[in-house]
Amino acid sequence: MEAEQTPEKPDLDPFFIPRRIALVGASTDYRKLGNSILMNLLASEVEVYPVTRNRDTVLGVKAYPNLAAIPKPVDLVIVAIAAKHCPDLMKEIRRAGARHAVVISGGFSETGEEGARLEAELVNAAREAGVRLIGPNCVGISNSRLFNGTFTMMPERGNIGLVSQSGALGGMLIYTTKAKRIGMSKFASVGNAADIGIVDIVDYFREDPKTSVITIYIEGVKNGRRLFESLRMASEKKPVVVLKGGRSDAGRRATQSHTGSLAGSTRVFDGMIKQAGCVTAPTLDTLFEIAKLFDYQPSPRGRNIGIISNTGGAGVLAADAASDFSLNVPPIEENTRKALRQILSPLASVDNPVDVVASGGRREYRVTVELMLADPNVDMLMVICAVPTFAGMTQTEHAAGTLEAIRAAETDKPVVGVWLAGDVGKPGKDLLEMNRIPCYDDPYVAALCMSRVAEYAERHNRSEQ
Amino acid sequence: MEAEQTPEKPDLDPFFIPRRIALVGASTDYRKLGNSILMNLLASEVEVYPVTRNRDTVLGVKAYPNLAAIPKPVDLVIVAIAAKHCPDLMKEIRRAGARHAVVISGGFSETGEEGARLEAELVNAAREAGVRLIGPNCVGISNSRLFNGTFTMMPERGNIGLVSQSGALGGMLIYTTKAKRIGMSKFASVGNAADIGIVDIVDYFREDPKTSVITIYIEGVKNGRRLFESLRMASEKKPVVVLKGGRSDAGRRATQSHTGSLAGSTRVFDGMIKQAGCVTAPTLDTLFEIAKLFDYQPSPRGRNIGIISNTGGAGVLAADAASDFSLNVPPIEENTRKALRQILSPLASVDNPVDVVASGGRREYRVTVELMLADPNVDMLMVICAVPTFAGMTQTEHAAGTLEAIRAAETDKPVVGVWLAGDVGKPGKDLLEMNRIPCYDDPYVAALCMSRVAEYAERHNRSEQ
Repeated sequence: MEAEQTPEKPDLDPFFIPRRIALVGASTDYRKLGNSILMNLLASEVEVYPVTRNRDTVLGVKAYPNLAAIPKPVDLVIVAIAAKHCPDLMKEIRRAGARHAVVISGGFSETGEEGARLEAELVNAAREAGVRLIGPNCVGISNSRLFNGTFTMMPERGNIGLVSQSGALGGMLIYTTKAKRIGMSKFASVGNAADIGIVDIVDYFREDPKTSVITIYIEGVKNGRRLFESLRMASEKKPVVVLKGGRSDAGRRATQSHTGSLAGSTRVFDGMIKQAGCVTAPTLDTLFEIAKLFDYQPSPRGRNIGIISNTGGAGVLAADAASDFSLNVPPIEENTRKALRQILSPLASVDNPVDVVASGGRREYRVTVELMLADPNVDMLMVICAVPTFAGMTQTEHAAGTLEAIRAAETDKPVVGVWLAGDVGKPGKDLLEMNRIPCYDDPYVAALCMSRVAEYAERHNRSEQ
Repeated sequence: MEAEQTPEKPDLDPFFIPRRIALVGASTDYRKLGNSILMNLLASEVEVYPVTRNRDTVLGVKAYPNLAAIPKPVDLVIVAIAAKHCPDLMKEIRRAGARHAVVISGGFSETGEEGARLEAELVNAAREAGVRLIGPNCVGISNSRLFNGTFTMMPERGNIGLVSQSGALGGMLIYTTKAKRIGMSKFASVGNAADIGIVDIVDYFREDPKTSVITIYIEGVKNGRRLFESLRMASEKKPVVVLKGGRSDAGRRATQSHTGSLAGSTRVFDGMIKQAGCVTAPTLDTLFEIAKLFDYQPSPRGRNIGIISNTGGAGVLAADAASDFSLNVPPIEENTRKALRQILSPLASVDNPVDVVASGGRREYRVTVELMLADPNVDMLMVICAVPTFAGMTQTEHAAGTLEAIRAAETDKPVVGVWLAGDVGKPGKDLLEMNRIPCYDDPYVAALCMSRVAEYAERHNRSEQ
């Protein structure tokens, strides 16, 4: 649960950029979270001090019987011991020189009344000791450039910040973005948010120079006004993409047994998010697809999209999808059409969507992408490539041609790819993505993401007026 | 373009179950379609007779200078020569004993007026000769159990029939379903549909014992009433999933330069598809996700879904998605709740969505799936598994527990999986899919697919009353 008030504006650097970390509850038992966390910390670029009463060394590293025994002051303490021992630890943490703790241990308010009392005790003990808390009952936090203070995977290095009210969904997003090679800057699972909550993390990500886009999974908070202000200020500085759990009656009932949040009406919440200048992600899978486009590409000037394809059918579906998301597919200049007519097959369609037809390869993609980017009617571009037609043709060359054109054009218009050929299309898709051209499996998802960056750009321009 | 009338109800077996195939335009040049088609045919379980004037052998196989030189009667002729030579070939085809031809060659009505005249000539020549035509300007046809008569990949062996008005999108669907290991029975690209059109293929798939689900990509046809009747009759026998290109104004404009179809109003078309008892796919990517669920699982009795997860957040999102698609997430029986309470962690939520929490593994999944399947309030089940928590835990065991429970229950309720962990979740996902439990990457897509099978089941039950 989000705290109603936080006593002071927290400095979260010691959470996210610590030099020395102590782990209380370090373990050699692979079934304990304190084992996974230690493994992750030892692979990090930080000094690690495992604390355990049971052994002199853990995983080959010297262990300390308690925090006081550590020879140097630590910046951050990660806690993975039984809940009942946590409140007493707070004073010890402060004595060891730290003011920041991540309590991963469960067994607090998520378990019922008794746990809630223990959580209140923990919060009081922390306040008295002057220790700021993330958690309890969370997956932990990580900084992809520095350390992994979670019991889950280290995120891919990158620029997208994620704060999640659900630890498991946060962990899941790390796994899936890793598989898709989408990079995160920092990750925080706020758990029961007994002290530091989503709002504090958003405020921190807003000022973090390594975070270019903020993503949020949220079910609900107690202080809606503070959330609104935090989102509004953040979205003025960088894009914020919000996935809201508990939009429906059935979903809201489920949030109550999950985070105990009063999720509130969808319309009110969605309206609030838009009012705050943020954009929404409709599904788990699209949260980072949208964020990726914000991260990789410039902002569009408007809602007019150009579509290029090597098959008419995909152009048709892309135009349909654009319409679904209130993007326009405008006519292009007569000059552009003439130039395309000269270079493309007589069978090509030189209207928008442009169909270079199946014979179009690297050269046709290069020229068409350049011409479309130069057309004043086009604010952003969707380049689609369907299956190769003959044996010597691959989708990689279409990707290379697209990439050359984008580089040659020195454009400030966003471009996305849609590479449609399962495993065979993957090398082309990878080539684009490694060059920060987001590439999607379906024109529908591409159009959805493009609509969100257009929405943010409109909002942002309006605020500037 | 769809022919206004077909002279007689065609017997399409020689197209889809031929014993001997002649390929006119067989080539050793890898840039020619006649080379790719020949490679594909030679890998098939049919007798292949390449026809070319240029060589005595192609790819090591005896070649014939013309159809008349082939010593045995052939069932099917595939044509990949210049358009202008195609009309004259029709008589020769009949003389060689065949009444069925697939004209892959382009250069007909898709190229303009002159091409349209050539196409009319082709159709007349075929009618005079008594030859039925698929194409021209198509990718070809295939039967995953017998032969690949296309210049694209052989589909994965399976039960889903696909007919596509766009050859490239058809080819693309073969590539992507292959990558996802979703099997097709038969594939047909109708191209310009100068003779045989979508309707004829749907009629054939309806009676085809190897096809359990029919999928269609369509932009428009000239004879809407015939299409409606064909869809209505087909959907009475098996599920039909339709992806419509040209739903929007922008998309409709694009169809005119693509297939030349008058796509007509979306609402009218969508209404017609539902009226005919078929279901719609909203996107390219979901066409086969929906078809897969129809193919793999039984029909649900109603719209009540049970949700099982090992993380609250995913249960919340699944309940939201269920709501988006008008599925209910009902309360479960008191008995089910009591039994779950006995077996699961005290931290578990035993309401629907059930949250077995992160500690729940194979045993918890097995028992929970069994109990939920036995609950009379549950018509179908979505089983979600998020990232593993500790080192010795994998998502494969959750999949194994789920599978055991489904087998033990001998249930007639459909079950789908949602395995949320990128690459790490893949073995569990594969285990389920190989046992015909469809597995999705997002609860939203799972709920979408479940809503379509529920819609079809309702419709079907209504027709039976």
